[in-house]
Amino acid sequence: MTHFAKTEKTRVRRKPDRSHYDADTVYAILDAGFICHVGYVIDGKPYVTPTCYWREGDRIYWHGSHASRMLRAVEGKPACVTVTHIDGLVAARSGFHHSVNYRSVMLFGKPHKVEDSRDKLRALENFIERIYPGRWRELRSVTKKELKATTVLHMPIAEASAKIRSGGPVDDKEDYALPVWAGVVPLALIHRTPVPDSRLPRGARPSSCLFDFARLGMAPAHPA
Amino acid sequence: MTHFAKTEKTRVRRKPDRSHYDADTVYAILDAGFICHVGYVIDGKPYVTPTCYWREGDRIYWHGSHASRMLRAVEGKPACVTVTHIDGLVAARSGFHHSVNYRSVMLFGKPHKVEDSRDKLRALENFIERIYPGRWRELRSVTKKELKATTVLHMPIAEASAKIRSGGPVDDKEDYALPVWAGVVPLALIHRTPVPDSRLPRGARPSSCLFDFARLGMAPAHPA
Repeated sequence: MTHFAKTEKTRVRRKPDRSHYDADTVYAILDAGFICHVGYVIDGKPYVTPTCYWREGDRIYWHGSHASRMLRAVEGKPACVTVTHIDGLVAARSGFHHSVNYRSVMLFGKPHKVEDSRDKLRALENFIERIYPGRWRELRSVTKKELKATTVLHMPIAEASAKIRSGGPVDDKEDYALPVWAGVVPLALIHRTPVPDSRLPRGARPSSCLFDFARLGMAPAHPA
Repeated sequence: MTHFAKTEKTRVRRKPDRSHYDADTVYAILDAGFICHVGYVIDGKPYVTPTCYWREGDRIYWHGSHASRMLRAVEGKPACVTVTHIDGLVAARSGFHHSVNYRSVMLFGKPHKVEDSRDKLRALENFIERIYPGRWRELRSVTKKELKATTVLHMPIAEASAKIRSGGPVDDKEDYALPVWAGVVPLALIHRTPVPDSRLPRGARPSSCLFDFARLGMAPAHPA
């Protein structure tokens, strides 16, 4: 199993018992989502932009318009990519020990453009297929103009750490006797039934890739 | 209605039609969540840390251990606080126009410590009450040691912008004739039934503040 080296950037200082540096854990957290927050610096000041990402092997990818300030500012520069999943509210017997269950990953590196247009196209296919498996072949081809208007960045997953909190509250010994309810309120991201576009022909049905997002960590909703 | 000035940092460049600079919109997005991503700079390099936040009037607050690297690095320095809610996957008729529905806010400023211990205590009460209204009075008092071990930062909500995408796909004119399903898969954060801590006395019941998180933008789950 690959382990990432602890560096000055990735070594978890607070609650080191919650830290993980193995690729399996880091990849599992990355693969359970599709929204990251990209940190970058312009004129010495920090910016944080949410965007979609996907993983291919030991690289993380994200994309956008070639005119995107974020993409222009971060290309070839130090970036921090953070992915966070919130799993629960932890209600303890004291205010101090209230907490949140979460899984998060921080990645550090320098992203670079995917320059070759065939590589870029393949990356975009991987992105769509990651969210909607089988959809790529339902779609018309990407045009040259669209491909040109799109920047795809990739960054090695090399300087990485994960942090996980799970389970119930951990209270001070003497507080266990207090008559206060304590436990966890589980939280989850769910998807609902697809809502058709108003300009679709009547009776058009979504394909199966629009009903199953378990791989992205999302459960289906069960309407009342 | 307060409008935030567009600055070099907050002016939305990509898709400016999705941008909002009024306090009502910014506050509504902030109030519909409790997890932010804080961007800060150490040695010229960006860091992005997820943490809980809460709003009081025209200020945003977050907290942590006084030993937290993030809190120490960001205090009195330029910070970017980003809050993102993901509302749906937008499946268009072409790969290019696939999108995500979201509401996000970016705040820029310099956070400072809440120095006065009464102010700090009041801020922590507001934090707990924001997530669990009524819980503060169920809890034992915060100890001096706990208060000392906790740093609370506040930052004015002054340099701020919101960005919102909602609704269905917007496709190229000629693509509307394609036989491809298009629409939106709504996504939502939900909360499930509270899970009691294993050390609670049998029959202990959670109070009502553990069942309703609509104010944080979370719907209850409806189990199958």
